[in-house]
Amino acid sequence: MRRARGAEVPASFWTDPLIYRGGSDTFVGPCDPIRIADLDWGVDFEAEVAVIVGDVPMGAPRDAARDAIRLLMLVNDVSLRNLIPAELAKGFGFLQGKAQTAFSPVVVTPDELGHAWDGAKVSLPLLSHVNGAPFRTAQCGRGHDVRFPGTDRSCGEDAAARVRHHRRLRHGIEPRRRWRAGPADRRGPGVGYSCIAEIRSVETIRHGAPKTPFLAYGDRVRIEMPDAEGRSIFGAIDQEVIRYDPPAR
Amino acid sequence: MRRARGAEVPASFWTDPLIYRGGSDTFVGPCDPIRIADLDWGVDFEAEVAVIVGDVPMGAPRDAARDAIRLLMLVNDVSLRNLIPAELAKGFGFLQGKAQTAFSPVVVTPDELGHAWDGAKVSLPLLSHVNGAPFRTAQCGRGHDVRFPGTDRSCGEDAAARVRHHRRLRHGIEPRRRWRAGPADRRGPGVGYSCIAEIRSVETIRHGAPKTPFLAYGDRVRIEMPDAEGRSIFGAIDQEVIRYDPPAR
Repeated sequence: MRRARGAEVPASFWTDPLIYRGGSDTFVGPCDPIRIADLDWGVDFEAEVAVIVGDVPMGAPRDAARDAIRLLMLVNDVSLRNLIPAELAKGFGFLQGKAQTAFSPVVVTPDELGHAWDGAKVSLPLLSHVNGAPFRTAQCGRGHDVRFPGTDRSCGEDAAARVRHHRRLRHGIEPRRRWRAGPADRRGPGVGYSCIAEIRSVETIRHGAPKTPFLAYGDRVRIEMPDAEGRSIFGAIDQEVIRYDPPAR
Repeated sequence: MRRARGAEVPASFWTDPLIYRGGSDTFVGPCDPIRIADLDWGVDFEAEVAVIVGDVPMGAPRDAARDAIRLLMLVNDVSLRNLIPAELAKGFGFLQGKAQTAFSPVVVTPDELGHAWDGAKVSLPLLSHVNGAPFRTAQCGRGHDVRFPGTDRSCGEDAAARVRHHRRLRHGIEPRRRWRAGPADRRGPGVGYSCIAEIRSVETIRHGAPKTPFLAYGDRVRIEMPDAEGRSIFGAIDQEVIRYDPPAR
């Protein structure tokens, strides 16, 4: 986290869930291309699990936030890594660095996950492939620091429970979780990666510089989550990075 | 700005427009109450002018961003001032500190503003009243640092033109402007205030401590913009701060 920001993190990072407004306008389809005008922006994928919640009144008790979870889906939270440090330095969040977001073709109700859903987290592997090759496997439900609204207080408080203190949650995609992973995790060895930036951070710590490049034109990212029998639960997000030529007018 | 953040601002503040994602979900009506569970959060109003844009392709030229402005309206960007410093310190923007947003009952096309609209900014007074008393008058079009997408580069670049570099603008309320005002402006004397925090900053600079309190239960805020003949262009935002009791369940 410190490396991603290029600065020390405030102490509250270790006690409060990290919450921010993600995009609400420029969603792309699960198989749409990732259109990029300049590869120097540092194109990365980011495989995540998201929940869709119903309305939660402001100040509602924790259980109400948990009970409001209606649907789950996968996300490719496409990130322009080289734009993010300057955005974070300003303090007002990312707008440029998170410019295109794709969701899985299928959303499911929590009961579809069976025992893999405990009301607060999914315990299943989140598979990412780049150009057909497995890109490490993040094991959801392990090594992450904040759960969906729910049953524990591993980080002092969970995300949706915190959000509801000061605002109501309208139906929508509210808390979104990137599954923390990789050896950089402060609680010991991680269990996989869901984006290139995490690998690059670990490479930097270990070798002094990142080795894995960000995505280039023609690269293809596939994100999927299998159930215990290996069947794809949400269908696949499958996107190619292509060159984008801005319009002359 | 430095005082609002409780820290030095990055140098880019003086050259780049400040852009962030505002709320997209929890809008309230122009005469709805402002429901607050705890006055210690520091309840403030913030009178602003907003534009609604059509779609702007990613990387479109500046003129395309300007031409995409379809409608204008007023905003009460209700702010919980005492929650904001901790949110800004994290770098991920405000979610808790900007919890309820009200728009004017009427939106207008730019041509309705006549000569008061130059394609980039509105040159008319933005009137705020608290409990029926005028709360200084911000003169829109003077003393502000970034224009709507348009015709000048007073701050190096305008907001929507910058945004379009890395993402498309979908139809919606995209760039929103709070009119900078008050003696704290770095370019000399200001021309009014559109929120309590600005007055408190000036009071702190001048007297060592703020004097003007934030809003309390029963306080009423009215925001309006008259045309040259004194007629209300957008109708009034007129809201009372009321106590909010969180649900038990």
